[in-house]
Amino acid sequence: MTNSIRIIGGSAHPEFAEQICAHVGVELCKTRLVRFSNENMMVQILENVREADVFVIQPSCPPVSDGILELLITIDALRHASARRITAVLPYFPYARSDKKDQPRISITARLMADLLETAGAHRVLTMDLHAPQVQGFFRIPVDQLKAAPIICDHLSNTRTLDDYVLVAGDVGEAKEIGGYANRLNLPIAIVDKRRDGDDEKPRAVHLIGDVEGKRALIVDDEIASGGTLMEAAGFVLKHGAVSVEATAVHPVLSGGATARIEASPLSSIVVTDTIPLSPEKRIDKIEVCSVSQLFADAILAIHDGSSISSLFR
Amino acid sequence: MTNSIRIIGGSAHPEFAEQICAHVGVELCKTRLVRFSNENMMVQILENVREADVFVIQPSCPPVSDGILELLITIDALRHASARRITAVLPYFPYARSDKKDQPRISITARLMADLLETAGAHRVLTMDLHAPQVQGFFRIPVDQLKAAPIICDHLSNTRTLDDYVLVAGDVGEAKEIGGYANRLNLPIAIVDKRRDGDDEKPRAVHLIGDVEGKRALIVDDEIASGGTLMEAAGFVLKHGAVSVEATAVHPVLSGGATARIEASPLSSIVVTDTIPLSPEKRIDKIEVCSVSQLFADAILAIHDGSSISSLFR
Amino acid sequence: MTNSIRIIGGSAHPEFAEQICAHVGVELCKTRLVRFSNENMMVQILENVREADVFVIQPSCPPVSDGILELLITIDALRHASARRITAVLPYFPYARSDKKDQPRISITARLMADLLETAGAHRVLTMDLHAPQVQGFFRIPVDQLKAAPIICDHLSNTRTLDDYVLVAGDVGEAKEIGGYANRLNLPIAIVDKRRDGDDEKPRAVHLIGDVEGKRALIVDDEIASGGTLMEAAGFVLKHGAVSVEATAVHPVLSGGATARIEASPLSSIVVTDTIPLSPEKRIDKIEVCSVSQLFADAILAIHDGSSISSLFR
Amino acid sequence: MTNSIRIIGGSAHPEFAEQICAHVGVELCKTRLVRFSNENMMVQILENVREADVFVIQPSCPPVSDGILELLITIDALRHASARRITAVLPYFPYARSDKKDQPRISITARLMADLLETAGAHRVLTMDLHAPQVQGFFRIPVDQLKAAPIICDHLSNTRTLDDYVLVAGDVGEAKEIGGYANRLNLPIAIVDKRRDGDDEKPRAVHLIGDVEGKRALIVDDEIASGGTLMEAAGFVLKHGAVSVEATAVHPVLSGGATARIEASPLSSIVVTDTIPLSPEKRIDKIEVCSVSQLFADAILAIHDGSSISSLFR
Amino acid sequence: MTNSIRIIGGSAHPEFAEQICAHVGVELCKTRLVRFSNENMMVQILENVREADVFVIQPSCPPVSDGILELLITIDALRHASARRITAVLPYFPYARSDKKDQPRISITARLMADLLETAGAHRVLTMDLHAPQVQGFFRIPVDQLKAAPIICDHLSNTRTLDDYVLVAGDVGEAKEIGGYANRLNLPIAIVDKRRDGDDEKPRAVHLIGDVEGKRALIVDDEIASGGTLMEAAGFVLKHGAVSVEATAVHPVLSGGATARIEASPLSSIVVTDTIPLSPEKRIDKIEVCSVSQLFADAILAIHDGSSISSLFR
Amino acid sequence: MTNSIRIIGGSAHPEFAEQICAHVGVELCKTRLVRFSNENMMVQILENVREADVFVIQPSCPPVSDGILELLITIDALRHASARRITAVLPYFPYARSDKKDQPRISITARLMADLLETAGAHRVLTMDLHAPQVQGFFRIPVDQLKAAPIICDHLSNTRTLDDYVLVAGDVGEAKEIGGYANRLNLPIAIVDKRRDGDDEKPRAVHLIGDVEGKRALIVDDEIASGGTLMEAAGFVLKHGAVSVEATAVHPVLSGGATARIEASPLSSIVVTDTIPLSPEKRIDKIEVCSVSQLFADAILAIHDGSSISSLFR
Repeated sequence: MTNSIRIIGGSAHPEFAEQICAHVGVELCKTRLVRFSNENMMVQILENVREADVFVIQPSCPPVSDGILELLITIDALRHASARRITAVLPYFPYARSDKKDQPRISITARLMADLLETAGAHRVLTMDLHAPQVQGFFRIPVDQLKAAPIICDHLSNTRTLDDYVLVAGDVGEAKEIGGYANRLNLPIAIVDKRRDGDDEKPRAVHLIGDVEGKRALIVDDEIASGGTLMEAAGFVLKHGAVSVEATAVHPVLSGGATARIEASPLSSIVVTDTIPLSPEKRIDKIEVCSVSQLFADAILAIHDGSSISSLFR
Repeated sequence: MTNSIRIIGGSAHPEFAEQICAHVGVELCKTRLVRFSNENMMVQILENVREADVFVIQPSCPPVSDGILELLITIDALRHASARRITAVLPYFPYARSDKKDQPRISITARLMADLLETAGAHRVLTMDLHAPQVQGFFRIPVDQLKAAPIICDHLSNTRTLDDYVLVAGDVGEAKEIGGYANRLNLPIAIVDKRRDGDDEKPRAVHLIGDVEGKRALIVDDEIASGGTLMEAAGFVLKHGAVSVEATAVHPVLSGGATARIEASPLSSIVVTDTIPLSPEKRIDKIEVCSVSQLFADAILAIHDGSSISSLFR
Repeated sequence: MTNSIRIIGGSAHPEFAEQICAHVGVELCKTRLVRFSNENMMVQILENVREADVFVIQPSCPPVSDGILELLITIDALRHASARRITAVLPYFPYARSDKKDQPRISITARLMADLLETAGAHRVLTMDLHAPQVQGFFRIPVDQLKAAPIICDHLSNTRTLDDYVLVAGDVGEAKEIGGYANRLNLPIAIVDKRRDGDDEKPRAVHLIGDVEGKRALIVDDEIASGGTLMEAAGFVLKHGAVSVEATAVHPVLSGGATARIEASPLSSIVVTDTIPLSPEKRIDKIEVCSVSQLFADAILAIHDGSSISSLFR
Repeated sequence: MTNSIRIIGGSAHPEFAEQICAHVGVELCKTRLVRFSNENMMVQILENVREADVFVIQPSCPPVSDGILELLITIDALRHASARRITAVLPYFPYARSDKKDQPRISITARLMADLLETAGAHRVLTMDLHAPQVQGFFRIPVDQLKAAPIICDHLSNTRTLDDYVLVAGDVGEAKEIGGYANRLNLPIAIVDKRRDGDDEKPRAVHLIGDVEGKRALIVDDEIASGGTLMEAAGFVLKHGAVSVEATAVHPVLSGGATARIEASPLSSIVVTDTIPLSPEKRIDKIEVCSVSQLFADAILAIHDGSSISSLFR
Repeated sequence: MTNSIRIIGGSAHPEFAEQICAHVGVELCKTRLVRFSNENMMVQILENVREADVFVIQPSCPPVSDGILELLITIDALRHASARRITAVLPYFPYARSDKKDQPRISITARLMADLLETAGAHRVLTMDLHAPQVQGFFRIPVDQLKAAPIICDHLSNTRTLDDYVLVAGDVGEAKEIGGYANRLNLPIAIVDKRRDGDDEKPRAVHLIGDVEGKRALIVDDEIASGGTLMEAAGFVLKHGAVSVEATAVHPVLSGGATARIEASPLSSIVVTDTIPLSPEKRIDKIEVCSVSQLFADAILAIHDGSSISSLFR
Repeated sequence: MTNSIRIIGGSAHPEFAEQICAHVGVELCKTRLVRFSNENMMVQILENVREADVFVIQPSCPPVSDGILELLITIDALRHASARRITAVLPYFPYARSDKKDQPRISITARLMADLLETAGAHRVLTMDLHAPQVQGFFRIPVDQLKAAPIICDHLSNTRTLDDYVLVAGDVGEAKEIGGYANRLNLPIAIVDKRRDGDDEKPRAVHLIGDVEGKRALIVDDEIASGGTLMEAAGFVLKHGAVSVEATAVHPVLSGGATARIEASPLSSIVVTDTIPLSPEKRIDKIEVCSVSQLFADAILAIHDGSSISSLFR
């Protein structure tokens, strides 16, 4: 029984957990989540996990705070239940964009999340495409960070003729991300230059650095939240002569009416992964989903067996 | 500027924070809580707090998980902002009843809460009437636990002739609580004896230990959540001959329809404190509220000045 | 050699350690305890324990302070000797009743004990019937808490006709304990209500809540120390009409003349376990001992093998 | 004597320490650094620092490893000497570019540096322009990060007519840095797009995104080390029609022949700060130095007094 | 009230604590030590110590284990009582000779003591003449180590004509200690060379290195425990022609009949300090006591005021 | 693949690492050390080490600071690479003589080294002949300390007729070391007594305690650094009538012209081990090297297998 692999699916993304189990070839470990009338939660592990190698799958998605606490409580329960090793599997990392102190007297909440996970008892983390790669350094415990770019690029190559495409970054600050895609797909780059008029203003697109005239624009980002940046960039590249505009992002957060805004936009398609569940109303034709569950399953097996994870990429 | 007192009111119970400020004689420290479309929160402290002695007031109440994370993020922001000392003021402690492992493979979540608070950066905790006094031992940092019994007993003595009252505990397991009230009010005790038929059954009231015949029953508990235990006990003491039934509890959680159930019940009154905010629909005539904000203000001043807190109790 | 099981018996209760070894089927690991003329102790592990799974058995009993330090020194020696895992087996937990701050400016010594054990290097704790179940939450490391109630109740059922028995709690504050016995044996409950006249007075029995008239009373507690509470309760139930009085407790501390007082008392029998050694003068006929060594042996094997401990209880 | 301010200048940049002392109005605290024949170092604090507020100034510069260990040893000596608070002042943070795991099985050395500083006993860090702002999140202790951009931009505005300038980022991955300068100086942006042919190749400049034709190019970076990236970018913008090329960087590392390469290059000037000492052979006419010592002095006073640091920036 | 000095005398050496209080000019802080019938101890601080600077005086002496636990419990109580700083004053450090692993699989108990003190909550340690100076490095917290040699040497110079004295170390392994005395008194040295015949034998004096013929021998050690080493050395130097033999040691442990053995021995006098209490039967004429309480008082004041302690030594 | 043994040779002493690998029967694990132009180092582990049992071999030798940081960075890389256990193998421990606070306001750097190693992520340490055995107590993690004395004594016995030898300690403070050799070789002892005239003077040899007249002197120390102490002792024993003088030391630091000084000295031979590499110019005929690589290999295997290390000595 010792050192067996156990996979627990939190309430955030049960389909993803089940797909991983299918790839790995194990049953989901049974758990019970009780939500009392006072909103307190109780998590009970229903199978013996002593000395087991346990993976808890819980991306950050609404209700975000409940999901984080459920994860911490689950890890605490596993620790008390004498699991040998607990790996928090966070396909989309909570508060990943709160990774720096860009205003006075705020929290670096991504670091706080790292500390909370270690405090609860996590021994490892498995995640995908952190907003900044430095976030990996927020942890003392080992973190494996998977990358969706190979899977997304393969999907793009298989479904489109990319000859007249140009990759677009929606902001100078986000241009770093785009380098890997440009190199892999061998495409040119353009960048939207946003400026802020006064201190309290939000930045506005004012220039387009590079050339999109007559080309198919593909906006690249790590996540789409409310879609505001994306919408502005899409309009801006069309104004600058792009013949069409699409987008890709690893994490489909799609919060606050983003789906409706995409549906109504000139964007012809959005390529995302399944790190975050899409509720039925978000499953519109424009959104193409590439699954990364097989990659997560392979990574879990590599962690369990002690084989290399870097060799899983390209 | 060094070592000045600063009081921050989280979003859980702003009225209570303001009353404390009024008693202490300071303004609430200005903060900003932003909730992004993806449900992530950002807390910004809007005043300089370097070297200040900061108290953050946040009882646990719905939305519970958001309140906990807001508190942790606020503490983290204060730590980065170089506050000299951060005291988490938790009039009602989160997950205080999850204080033991009474089922296999569950979390001791109250201890987890203690660890999360220490990890975020709290240096002290100020709270009131923990469900079990042992919870104080879950912390490495100093905890001051205030007691509402003197205030509630004074209120009862001032508003009722207590001669023919009997105090009732709704469960043998909760009888400990009642001792302090009985001693202070010099009243007899009765206890509802609940038993469970099978392992999976909920316990049911089967006996009344002690005598309530012809007396006014006052059920004593530390909190009223859904009110289930309270309702069962109220009916049970009436069936055993009590001429009236009232109740008192420190923390008015009043979750899941508890207020309506109280309104419809034979309970003639409930005495509670203001550790938890009562939304307008919970402010019914049957519920009498004793304020403990002055006591909290006195405790905050004692902590700040280094004077004795135990002397605040009679 | 790696991962073999090793059982060390400290000087507190060697017979118990030997019984456990017999049940588990291993030899006691050889150690040497030297007590220098300056009262300093040296513990040497006389066998190689590198990578071994070591269990150190040491209940709290006189000389209490020496026993605690011997345990801490043994754990430290095991850590330096590269044991893979060290489990402190504490059938009776030291300072378990010092679990809360019920007076100003005192220590929560049970939490201190937990911290000292973790500091010395314990990876796990195995114990039985903590005075308050919350004490389990004093530890960051996993704690398994065994319960003697099933064994004691079986013994009572096998040796007595329980039809006209009533279970008695000697104090409202200790009534919680009795619930499990009452449920399991299906017997009624009575509780001694003790009050204190002034602040400095000790509480005195003033009422009996519930009915013992014409019944055989069985006083239930978790431990018997000096026996003062027990004697007072025994006299009180007889005064209230009980036809006989017995008692049961898990931990036979029996300190300060307790045995003589029991011998001279109206108590006809006391049922205890062997978590604490009984010196020859404590082995009087009135004291019936149920052994829990088999249960401890089963728990040690379950911890070692990674099989479930909760399934050891009925 | 308690809580007096003490400033210690390590051997890395004594002039900078002395300038700070002059601005703050205190004498340098006397220390002694002995280097034994076996290369071991001994640091002795020659004045009483009990309960003092101590700032140790040590940017990372050659000999790098000696400088890091000297700093750690100094902090350890201060801790043993009972300093009340120790702030490591690192104008140029060591290993700041080793902030992510961009290759398999490497160290995140900037995080390691953070951990080593905390382990030695630092209570705070004061630094300037971290390569990535996320590095601030590598610390549990408070970090104040100063920004040179306001000082450098003022210098540029005061010494040049900037009308026909364009800001250039030498790499898509470094474009983020440039945003702040562009906003502040209200200038357009261009970016060198570097690609790598095969996996083992170094990236080469292949495109220029944006327009430099007929403009004065100013390449912006956070540091100049060997100058390789800078040289390539300078040549590339001239090839694309820039009429002149200059550069600015906060940290003048200037390692491995960088100064000679700059002297021989088409770059007409380089604007840097004095976070790192310039040896005499690096003091060439092309290199303009803006001092940031006053800003560091102001920050040290703000930390000591508990006044706001964010208000030091415009 | 904040930051006032408070001195607590544990039960180990109340006279010493009172002398320190007299020198410092404060009253002993009132505490209460209860020892229950089950040997558990309770320590209560009877005065408010919030934000106070507290010193707890407790050398290691019989009953040793009780004294250590009393100290840890006192520190824990002070931590919960919100003392601002807690200094453990250990004139004689517990288990100071268990400072290395000179046999397989033993504890380094002096390091364990350091860890237990830090765990309980001590912020500083003040001690005198550790058996090995390296023990100071067992602590993360600051340790001030006082030296008795100046006081003892002054006493010797004032009471004896030292011209024809020779200092003697009882063992090659203990010769280090003697260097300081020899330098200070400008006297020659001799050393007893002890060898062990077989592995299990105790070492026996076999040679005398250096010359004692016709001289007055003064054996120097850091402590006298059972006196075995001392007796052997005394006999050995007389056999080698010394005309008289005396001894000096900082810590008068005098365990296991040492006093009687000294009384009956050829030793004409023993000079010790008062770090450890001498029970009446140990107060024999041969034992001369130099008090170090003034030095401890000076050190406590220096720690409190932040003035230099090294300047207390010549 | 799990739990395989991996040996990494840092850049300090690659020959020693290769000899250990040959003894153990494994290949050196491939790594890459890059030193950038700014002197920053990058260490990459070139083979998968997930779940492996890794030993990193790095004695302290020039460049000392680089060697320490390379070791810490390597351990950090291994931790991020998910090694199951990391043992730092330090044949010569860095800063081992900085083990006490023998001057005011200095660092106890050997303890700092211990803390840095634990912080980087080392799980164990394997070392040889620490200057003071107490240094082992500076670590929380298990330390195995090998002893060279048996190997050196065997070498001496095999190559010399020891009948008329006398062992000499160069300083009273270092006499402890010599005991083990004297016991093992059954030889007499003499000690150089050094005194210091004033406080700031270095100590000078003034007496020779014991007798060397007509004997062959063998000076014993744990290390030879600059050789100053050794040279003084050698001249002193010859002046006192020794017919020849040799020396032995475990660690051949030989810094600052020591080799030339030895070559020119009356010392006829020096016996050392290979814990530190000897550069070609240090390989003079007078220096005899006993290899301890086999002993380290045996210890590594014992650690890996969980077999006894103490049994390797005798």
